Amino acid sequence: MNIYDVSKKAGVSIATVSRVLNGNQNVSDKTKNKVLTVMEELGYTPNVFARGLGLNTMHTIGIMCSDSSDTFLANAVYYIEQALRKNGYEAFLCCTGYELENKKKYLRLLLSKRVDAVIMVGSQYLESAKQDNEYIIAAANKLPVMMINGYLSHPNIYCTLCDDYQAVFDAVCRLAGHGRKRFLFLYRFDSSSSRNKRKGFCDGLEHAGLSLSEDSVRLCSEGIPETRDFLLSLFEKGCSYDAILTAEDSLAVAAVKFAGAAGIRIPEELEIVGYNNSLLCMCTEPELSTLDNHVETLSITTVNTLMRILQGADVPNKTTISNDFIVRGTAY
Amino acid sequence: MNIYDVSKKAGVSIATVSRVLNGNQNVSDKTKNKVLTVMEELGYTPNVFARGLGLNTMHTIGIMCSDSSDTFLANAVYYIEQALRKNGYEAFLCCTGYELENKKKYLRLLLSKRVDAVIMVGSQYLESAKQDNEYIIAAANKLPVMMINGYLSHPNIYCTLCDDYQAVFDAVCRLAGHGRKRFLFLYRFDSSSSRNKRKGFCDGLEHAGLSLSEDSVRLCSEGIPETRDFLLSLFEKGCSYDAILTAEDSLAVAAVKFAGAAGIRIPEELEIVGYNNSLLCMCTEPELSTLDNHVETLSITTVNTLMRILQGADVPNKTTISNDFIVRGTAY
Repeated sequence: MNIYDVSKKAGVSIATVSRVLNGNQNVSDKTKNKVLTVMEELGYTPNVFARGLGLNTMHTIGIMCSDSSDTFLANAVYYIEQALRKNGYEAFLCCTGYELENKKKYLRLLLSKRVDAVIMVGSQYLESAKQDNEYIIAAANKLPVMMINGYLSHPNIYCTLCDDYQAVFDAVCRLAGHGRKRFLFLYRFDSSSSRNKRKGFCDGLEHAGLSLSEDSVRLCSEGIPETRDFLLSLFEKGCSYDAILTAEDSLAVAAVKFAGAAGIRIPEELEIVGYNNSLLCMCTEPELSTLDNHVETLSITTVNTLMRILQGADVPNKTTISNDFIVRGTAY
Repeated sequence: MNIYDVSKKAGVSIATVSRVLNGNQNVSDKTKNKVLTVMEELGYTPNVFARGLGLNTMHTIGIMCSDSSDTFLANAVYYIEQALRKNGYEAFLCCTGYELENKKKYLRLLLSKRVDAVIMVGSQYLESAKQDNEYIIAAANKLPVMMINGYLSHPNIYCTLCDDYQAVFDAVCRLAGHGRKRFLFLYRFDSSSSRNKRKGFCDGLEHAGLSLSEDSVRLCSEGIPETRDFLLSLFEKGCSYDAILTAEDSLAVAAVKFAGAAGIRIPEELEIVGYNNSLLCMCTEPELSTLDNHVETLSITTVNTLMRILQGADVPNKTTISNDFIVRGTAY
């Protein structure tokens, strides 16, 4: 039983059912009554139904995040909660970890608590196998689902993304323009966001007419000292780079540490670019140049979009925010 | 209606009522029945009552934290959630902010969601005015309340603390032993933990026979660049320090930045000590010496204690964990 069954039986579009569910005023009384009657016949009573009629709302939003110790995710959650509170909503945060079964379990838990909507923070919620995202689609048949840095097509899923692919692509072209030729890309785990960044890196190299080898992309899932030591071991084996791009700032910190230990001058001999513009950027010497994905804007845009949905407005299902290259001491 | 009324009317101690509530086997059937009868007469049916009898548990724990973008708190929440999940419990996290009214609102929300217990993370939950903590006492009459880095005396409140006072006191004595004489203490906001650290600092100076002036303690509530600039402005006014202790690592990062800008050699001319042993320590050059308050141990101890309470065991209401001085590049 879901929004599609209602749409089919009532003979109206899914968007119309969604508008009725979300209390939108731009639906005729006749259509609204037809949809409500079908819902009743089918026994379809999602939270949003009660909420659309102004009943039974807890003014509570569920937030899912995979790892609260990740700086980007923690900041996103912080800004989301601030913005929700300003709008008179409370938030329940579930830190689900990275395993699919736990993500599903927490989403069920949030639905059972009758939240008004769910916000999924981070690209870790977009699985590469299509059927593994079905549980999100199923939830979206009951309430609005907001995704940050993940995109799924569904009338009741609303995504806010930063353009990770383009940001890394442009950064590669920028550094190639400085005459850099030996590029390395570091990432910390596999996620749709990491895959987009990696693709931007590879396509950027191709665009700049530079070669890509198996040594050009490295997975570094451990901490800063381990990553520094790994880069030192590559250096001792004769691998030599003049540009290191990373999927997150902590990896760029490790690259700065490596250069210091190897006696490589930054940025003259080696340019390093972080990702996220986190607090870590201000800690290194020199300070990190980085790609700013505007976590505050992403978070606030998501909440503003949600508030408009809950007020019954029609809003676009996808909003893309561009990144900025922030120049500090590690890259021009 | 609370645990005290039950205790009084049943003519047993609060600890006994608590044991019955928590399903402890070390209570005679006669006493247990008396307590249960009184509870029924008084209409006292807290969650834990149902849970103690093995009914109606959601296996869900509420976590309250003031600010998910704070590194220490975010890490504590991370370890707590990992440990709860290992024990088959789910977690709901509320980021309450720093205002008392919001803390109260979120605690009410968690109680209404029928969680099995509440964990309050961080000393921000201990208010300086006694009556402002009454809402925590009231909640503890209904379910176990765990506090990390805060202490309130109540039979159903269980506290895990690190000894902030002693850690800073010892660090001052250590640096005084290196011949340091002009000490500065930086803190970022007023909390019971900050107050303990500050007191440890002042008492440490006195113990070492050093003088304390109004310039010795400074509140720096802004970011790293602002704090660095503030320290530079003090330096230009003629304030000169040879030891800077801080209430958190980000302030120590700012002190390292200041020393770099002012041409002061670390640690020869100036020793700097951070607090928390966070990721930031690995980012500076030289790396930060810091006081490690063992956030992982604090978090896991709290969850282990809670699991024993939920199994009906008698556990101490207060557990104190000592801190360690971690020597890296900014202090001997």
